[in-house]
Amino acid sequence: MGQFFSCFAPLEKWTAAKLTGAKRAGSVLLLPALLSSVALAEEGMWTFNNFPKERVKRAYQFEPSDAWLDKVRLSSARLANGCSGSFVSSTGLVMTNHHCVNECVEQLSSAGKDLIAKGFYAEKARDEKKCPEIEVNRLLEITDITTVVQQATKGLQGQAFNDAQKASMARMEQECSAGNDKVRCEVVTLYHGGKYNLYKYQRYQDVRLVFAPELAIAFFGGDPDNFNFPRYDLDSAFLRVYENNEPLKNKHFFSWSKQNAKEGDLTFVTGHPGRTSRLLTTVELEFDRDVGLLRSLLKLSELRGFLTEFQKRSAEAKRISAGHLFSVENSLKALKGRHQALLDKKFFSQMVANEQKLRAKVNANPQWKKEFGGAWDEIAKAVAVQRDIFKEYAATERNTYGSKLFEIARTIVRSGDELSKPNEKRLREFGESRLPQLKQELFSDAPIYDEFEVALMAHAFTKLREDLSPDHPFVKKVLGKNAPMDLAKNLVKGTQLKSVKAREALFKGGKDAIAKSSDAMIQLALLVDADSRSNRERFENEVESVVKKNSELVAKAKFATEGTDTYPDATFTLRISYGKIQGFPDSGKMVPPLTTMGGAFARHTGADPFALPPSWLKAEAKINKETPFNFVSTNDIIGGNSGSPVINKNAEIIGLIFDGNIHSLGGAYGFDPTANRAVSVHSAAIVEALRNIYGAQRVVDDLLGANATGEIGRTMTHSEDGSATSKQ
Amino acid sequence: MGQFFSCFAPLEKWTAAKLTGAKRAGSVLLLPALLSSVALAEEGMWTFNNFPKERVKRAYQFEPSDAWLDKVRLSSARLANGCSGSFVSSTGLVMTNHHCVNECVEQLSSAGKDLIAKGFYAEKARDEKKCPEIEVNRLLEITDITTVVQQATKGLQGQAFNDAQKASMARMEQECSAGNDKVRCEVVTLYHGGKYNLYKYQRYQDVRLVFAPELAIAFFGGDPDNFNFPRYDLDSAFLRVYENNEPLKNKHFFSWSKQNAKEGDLTFVTGHPGRTSRLLTTVELEFDRDVGLLRSLLKLSELRGFLTEFQKRSAEAKRISAGHLFSVENSLKALKGRHQALLDKKFFSQMVANEQKLRAKVNANPQWKKEFGGAWDEIAKAVAVQRDIFKEYAATERNTYGSKLFEIARTIVRSGDELSKPNEKRLREFGESRLPQLKQELFSDAPIYDEFEVALMAHAFTKLREDLSPDHPFVKKVLGKNAPMDLAKNLVKGTQLKSVKAREALFKGGKDAIAKSSDAMIQLALLVDADSRSNRERFENEVESVVKKNSELVAKAKFATEGTDTYPDATFTLRISYGKIQGFPDSGKMVPPLTTMGGAFARHTGADPFALPPSWLKAEAKINKETPFNFVSTNDIIGGNSGSPVINKNAEIIGLIFDGNIHSLGGAYGFDPTANRAVSVHSAAIVEALRNIYGAQRVVDDLLGANATGEIGRTMTHSEDGSATSKQ
Repeated sequence: MGQFFSCFAPLEKWTAAKLTGAKRAGSVLLLPALLSSVALAEEGMWTFNNFPKERVKRAYQFEPSDAWLDKVRLSSARLANGCSGSFVSSTGLVMTNHHCVNECVEQLSSAGKDLIAKGFYAEKARDEKKCPEIEVNRLLEITDITTVVQQATKGLQGQAFNDAQKASMARMEQECSAGNDKVRCEVVTLYHGGKYNLYKYQRYQDVRLVFAPELAIAFFGGDPDNFNFPRYDLDSAFLRVYENNEPLKNKHFFSWSKQNAKEGDLTFVTGHPGRTSRLLTTVELEFDRDVGLLRSLLKLSELRGFLTEFQKRSAEAKRISAGHLFSVENSLKALKGRHQALLDKKFFSQMVANEQKLRAKVNANPQWKKEFGGAWDEIAKAVAVQRDIFKEYAATERNTYGSKLFEIARTIVRSGDELSKPNEKRLREFGESRLPQLKQELFSDAPIYDEFEVALMAHAFTKLREDLSPDHPFVKKVLGKNAPMDLAKNLVKGTQLKSVKAREALFKGGKDAIAKSSDAMIQLALLVDADSRSNRERFENEVESVVKKNSELVAKAKFATEGTDTYPDATFTLRISYGKIQGFPDSGKMVPPLTTMGGAFARHTGADPFALPPSWLKAEAKINKETPFNFVSTNDIIGGNSGSPVINKNAEIIGLIFDGNIHSLGGAYGFDPTANRAVSVHSAAIVEALRNIYGAQRVVDDLLGANATGEIGRTMTHSEDGSATSKQ
Repeated sequence: MGQFFSCFAPLEKWTAAKLTGAKRAGSVLLLPALLSSVALAEEGMWTFNNFPKERVKRAYQFEPSDAWLDKVRLSSARLANGCSGSFVSSTGLVMTNHHCVNECVEQLSSAGKDLIAKGFYAEKARDEKKCPEIEVNRLLEITDITTVVQQATKGLQGQAFNDAQKASMARMEQECSAGNDKVRCEVVTLYHGGKYNLYKYQRYQDVRLVFAPELAIAFFGGDPDNFNFPRYDLDSAFLRVYENNEPLKNKHFFSWSKQNAKEGDLTFVTGHPGRTSRLLTTVELEFDRDVGLLRSLLKLSELRGFLTEFQKRSAEAKRISAGHLFSVENSLKALKGRHQALLDKKFFSQMVANEQKLRAKVNANPQWKKEFGGAWDEIAKAVAVQRDIFKEYAATERNTYGSKLFEIARTIVRSGDELSKPNEKRLREFGESRLPQLKQELFSDAPIYDEFEVALMAHAFTKLREDLSPDHPFVKKVLGKNAPMDLAKNLVKGTQLKSVKAREALFKGGKDAIAKSSDAMIQLALLVDADSRSNRERFENEVESVVKKNSELVAKAKFATEGTDTYPDATFTLRISYGKIQGFPDSGKMVPPLTTMGGAFARHTGADPFALPPSWLKAEAKINKETPFNFVSTNDIIGGNSGSPVINKNAEIIGLIFDGNIHSLGGAYGFDPTANRAVSVHSAAIVEALRNIYGAQRVVDDLLGANATGEIGRTMTHSEDGSATSKQ
C-alpha cells in the first residue's frame, strides 16, 4: 500500500532519508523496460530469491553463486527507520551514512554540545553512545507465501478483502516470530500483489554511535549540491551493534577492499530501496502528478521557508531545527525531480501507450480478458474516490500536526484500543511484529524542544484550517475559538508527555487511564481519534482495498504476458543491483566518475555550505589529496538505499552509497541508463579521513585489522583529463 | 505580452492587488463561450467601444445609451499601480479598496504609528495625507489604431517585428500626450493583436488618503476567508485627488444610490481587469500549468513560510512585513485556483477540442489556411524555446532579488542608458508616456527597512543559486565567495539609495555619474545588467515576437470564423461587465447573496483573523445589524477589478468590488456562470460604518451631500432563511 502514502508523507522516516533516483528538463528519460518486456542491462532492484545471475554473467563474466548471495545478504543491514547499512567487522561495526544517523547525533547533542557541528568519535569503547531510536535488522530468511495470502482473500472485496488480507498477514508474522522480540517478521507485498513473501529478520535494538564526522563535510555543498555530481562529501558514519551489553560477535560481514575501485569496475549495491512506482497504472501516476506530489511540494516549500527563518531565531533554534530542515529540503528536491519526470509529456505518453498495449494483449485473450480485463477501470474508479476524500484523509489521519508530542499521544491513545484486540484485528502498525520498534520510539528519551513543538504545531494548525476551511466541523472541533498559536502553546504547556515515565504509565494504564488523563495532548488525541479513524476506514475500504485487489490482477496480467524474469517495485526490503563505475553526459559533456579529496579544498569558499570544517583545514598537508573521494556508478537505487555498501565481486567494500545524481530522480518511475547514477563515498576516502583527519584508529583497526598497511587509499593519481583514476 | 509574465511575477503590482476569478475540485467549469461561438449571458469584460447594448436590453430590458456609457467611463478611475476605483464626489473623492491603498497606509505608518492596525481618518481637510506612490487615471478617449500598428510590422519577424512594433507604439503614445505629463497615452493590444487601440488618460499624481478602516475589519477573516463567501469585510478606502494643491473640481462622478441593492438587481461593474488567458492557445496554457504557474506556486509557498516566521521576530518586523505577506498569500491562493482550473482534465480537453475545431475550420478554407494555418505551430515552437530559456530569464531579468533598493538601483542604471536614446528605441518601461509614473516611484519617500531588505535579499540570493546552480557563471558573478546573507548585509550597508536626494543626483548625473558611483547596490545593478539584458533580448526576439506575430493571426482567424461580437482578454484597461445580485450553489446548497453587519459579530472569535477591531465592538449597540454588508453578483471580473464600483442602471453606486468567490478563480481561463461570483461591499454598510462607527462625517457629506438623511442603509431585515434581503 506504499503507493498511497508517498505523497502524503514525504517526511515519514524512510523518505526523510535520502530519496534518490526525475530527470532534468531537456534530457530524455528512457522507459522502464519492465513495462515493455524485460529489464535493461543495469536496471533493476532485484530480490535475493530472483537474482538474474545469468544476466550479470553475460555482461560482466562473473556469476554470483548462491553462497555469495547468502554472504552478501547476511552482511547487509537495514536501519528500520528508513536506511540501509552494512556489517563491516566481526565486532558488530555497522557502516551507514551520516544523514542516516543524523537524528541520533542530534538526539545525543544538547544546548552546550552540538555533535552535528563538531562531529563525534568514541575514542574508547565505553564512549560509544546508544542511539535511542535506531533498530538494525539483518535478513535471515525469505519464504514465498503468495498462495496463502491470495487464498485468504479469494472472492472478497472492499472491507472484507482488506480485513482478510491483514488478518492472514498478521497471523503469519506472529507465527514466524513466535513471541521472540529479537526476531522481526514481515509480509512483503511484491509486484503490487503478484507475490507475497515473508521476510524474517534478526532485530538489534542496542545500537551505539561510534563515529560521525562534522555536518560541514558529511554534507559539504549542502542543499545546493544535493543530488548533484561532482561531489565531495564524507557522508559516512559508524555504529556498533551490541548484544547483552557487549559488542556483537559477528560472523557475517563485508571485508574492506584492498584495491581502490576505478572507472569501469563492476559494482554491486545491496540495500533497501524505499519505494518506486514503475509498475503503477497511469491513473495512479496522474494522481501522483496532479494531486499528491503537487500537494507535498507546496506544503514542503512553505515549511522550508518557515524553517529557514526559524533558524535565525537563535543559535539554539538553529541547532534544534537543522535536522528537520535537512529532511524537508532533501524531500523537496527529490519530489521535485519526480514531479518533473511525470510532467515530461513524452515520458508520460509512453507510459500510457505501454499500458494500452498491455490491455490490448489482455483483451485479445478471452481467458485473460475475463480474469484481468476489468482491473484498470476498477483502479480508476478507486482513484476517483481517492481524489474526493484525499484532503480530509490527509488533514486528519495522515497528520501529526507537526508535533512529536502529539505523535506520542496518539500512539498511546490508540495502543489503549488496539492492544486489547487480537493481533489479527489491530491496525497494522500495532501488530505484534511491529511492537518492539513502536515501543523503542515511544519510550525514547530523545529530547523534545518546547519552542520547536509550539512553532511547528501552530504552523500545522494554520494549514489544517486552510486545507479544510475555518467552517469545517473538524477544524472547529480542534481549534474552537483559539488562534493556532495559542492552542499550540496551551497544548505543549499542558502535557507531561516529555517524560518517558508519564508515557509508560499511560501505556501500561491502558484505555481507562488514558480516558481519565487530564493531559492536554492526550485529550487532543482522544478528541480527534474518531474522525481520523473514520477517514482512514473510508480510505482503506473504498480506495486501498480496491486498488490492492485489482493491482494483484494487473500484476498477474503482466506475469502472464511478460513472464516473471522481472524485479518488483521497491518496498524497503533487501534488494541487490549491479552496475559499474561510469560517468554520465550532462549539458553536452561527460562528467568523469570520480572526484578526489583535493577537489573539496578547491571548492571550499569559507562560507556555509561550502566551508570545510577546521579538522580538514588543519589536516590539509597530512592527507593525500589524490585519494578518490566520491564516485558515480550505474546501479539502480532510490531513497532507502542510503547507507548501502557498494561491493566488488569479492563482496568487499569499495564504497558507500549516499545519493543519486539529478538524473536519478525520475528513477521513481523509470530507469534511464544513460544518465541515472548512484553517488557513493569511495572506500579509500573513508579510511584516509578516519586515519589522517580524525585519528579514529579504533575504527580503522576494526575495518582493516590492526596490522593493516597505511597505504590503502593512497594510490590515486590524476589522469590527463583531470579526473581521478586509480593505478593498481 | 502580458501572458508571458503572469507566472513569473505574481508579486508585480497589478497582480499583487486582488486576483480574482479556477474552480474548486469537483465542480464543473463551463467553457468560455468565446472559444466556441458567442459569449454567454453574463460573461464578458467588455470594452467601452464594443459594448453589447442589445444583449443587456434583451436580458434586462435596459439599454445603456452612449451618454450613459460616457458618464460611466469618465466617472471610473484606474489606480496605475494595479487597481480600480471610482470618482464619487464633486470634490475629487475616489473610492477604492483598503487592500488597494494598503501600501500607502503602510508607507504613512512608522514604528510608533501603525495605521494599518489602527485605521486612518482625516478629520480635517488638512489632515489628508499624500500617498507617495499612487497615480490615478481617468480614461478620456479611445482610438482604434489597428491598421497603423499592423502596417508597421508587415512582413517582419523576430527582432525586426518587435522593434518595429514597439517603435510605432512609442511614436503614437508620444504624439498623443504631446509632452504633457498630465496626459498618459498607452497603446493597448486587444485580442492578442486582433486590435490595437490608443487609450488616452488624464493623469493625477497628487492623491491623498482620506479614510481607511482597520485591517482587522477591512480583511476580516484574513487569508482563511479570502476568496470565500459568505463574507464580512469593510474592504473600502477613500482617497482624494488634488490639483494645484486643491481638491479636484470634479464634473464626472457617480452618485450614491438611495436605494439598497437587493437580490436580483441588475449590476454593472466598471474597472480594470488585469489579465485573463481565455484566448490563449493550448500550448501556452500547458506552459502556464506545467512550468510558469508551478514555479510561482512553489516560490510563493516558500516565501510565505519565510514571511510568516519573519513576522515573529518582533512587533516592528510584523508591521513592516504585513503588506508583503498579504500580497504573497493573496497571489498564492489566486494562482492555486488558476492552476486547479488547468489541472481539470475535462476542462482542459475541451479547450483542446475547441482549438482543434477552429484549426479545422481554418484549414477547410484555402485562403484562411494560407493566411492563418501555420500560426499555432509557430507559437508552439516559440513556447518550446520559452521552456528552455525560462529559468535563466526569470532568474536574471525578471528578478529584483527581493529588494526595493535593487529595484531603484536598476532603474537608475538603466535610465542612464535608456534616456539618452530616442523614445522609440527605449525599453518600453522608459518610454515618455511611462516616465512620470516611473519617476513618482523612483523618487518616492516611502520608508525602506534595512532588516526586511536584508532578509528578503538573502532569501532571494539563495533561490538564485538554487535555480541556476552554484556553478552557473551568473551566480558566481553575483555571489562570489560570499554567503547570501553576508552579501545582502553588505549591499544594504553599502548603499545610499534610501536617500531620495542620492537617487536624484545619480538620475540627473546620468551614465557617467552612475559608472563612477561607489554605491554597492548601483555596482550590483551594473554588474548584472549585461547578462540580464541579453536574456531579455533572447526572450523578446525568440519567444515574445513570434508569439505576438502569430497571436495576431489566431485572432484574425477567430474574427473570420466567429465574428467580432466578442470581448478581448483583460489588459488592465477599462472594461464594463453586467450581471445581477445572485447566490451560487456550493456543496449542494445555495449560498444566499447577501450578508449583514450583524453576521460579522456572529463570526467574531476574538482571535486574529476573526477578531473585530475595538471600534466595532464599541459601536455594536449603535449600528443597525441588519444593514447589508457584503454581496455577490454574477459580474465577470478578475484581479485588477479591485476597487471597482458596482452601479445600478442609474449609474449610482450600490457596491464596491473587493474579491471573487473561490469558483471565480478559474475565471482566468473561462467563465462559469453557475458559480463564478464577484464579491462586493454593499454601499449601505459603507455609509453605516462611516457614520456610526467611525464618525467620518466629512466623507459621508461628500458622498451623500451634507443634508442627506440618516436612513440610507438602514432598511434591511432578515428573510426567513436567514439571508439578508432589503425591503424597499
